[in-house]
Amino acid sequence: MTDQPEPHPVTGLDDVVHQRVRLGILTVAHQARRVEFGFLRTALGLTAGNLSQHLSVLEKAGLIDIEKGYEGKRARTWLSLTPSGDRALKDEVTQLKRLIQQIEQGGS
Amino acid sequence: MTDQPEPHPVTGLDDVVHQRVRLGILTVAHQARRVEFGFLRTALGLTAGNLSQHLSVLEKAGLIDIEKGYEGKRARTWLSLTPSGDRALKDEVTQLKRLIQQIEQGGS
Repeated sequence: MTDQPEPHPVTGLDDVVHQRVRLGILTVAHQARRVEFGFLRTALGLTAGNLSQHLSVLEKAGLIDIEKGYEGKRARTWLSLTPSGDRALKDEVTQLKRLIQQIEQGGS
Repeated sequence: MTDQPEPHPVTGLDDVVHQRVRLGILTVAHQARRVEFGFLRTALGLTAGNLSQHLSVLEKAGLIDIEKGYEGKRARTWLSLTPSGDRALKDEVTQLKRLIQQIEQGGS
């Protein structure tokens, strides 16, 4: 242990992506390519308000596209990952793997 | 895709542990067993105030022990993982691995 340690893997994580609910949203969107609001809400066990807030953060960061339309007569909202969102999720996975490796190498 | 999807891996993550800075604190403590406040602050690139706030959350949750004392004439604060903290970090890693597996299996 020195007085000037190397930057820790968590310093490479982006809070916009790493936050638990947003990481879930990005993961589901990555798997489904295009995901409906109500499905996502149920999958992640969220209120509509909470989900909307997180979607807004992700949209402002350019990580998802939001599309509004109709399925029959029902208003629907769909979202999909942008190329930036896909890269951001992959970067998160890269950093998480580094972190897991450190955890599993160190300590008992 | 059904109307009643299975609970998503992120629903099994604990925000107390998953939050980026706290995950860093727990990881460093896991690696070092007993870690000094100033070292941790430098390693994670935090202000003293920000680090103190996160340590307080972790201590209240019973995940770390905080010990105050002296090194020579200098006041020092050390922290170490409790057995609960160690288990919580291992649970986080288990959930993260499930999540990474889902991300790498789904999508492009």
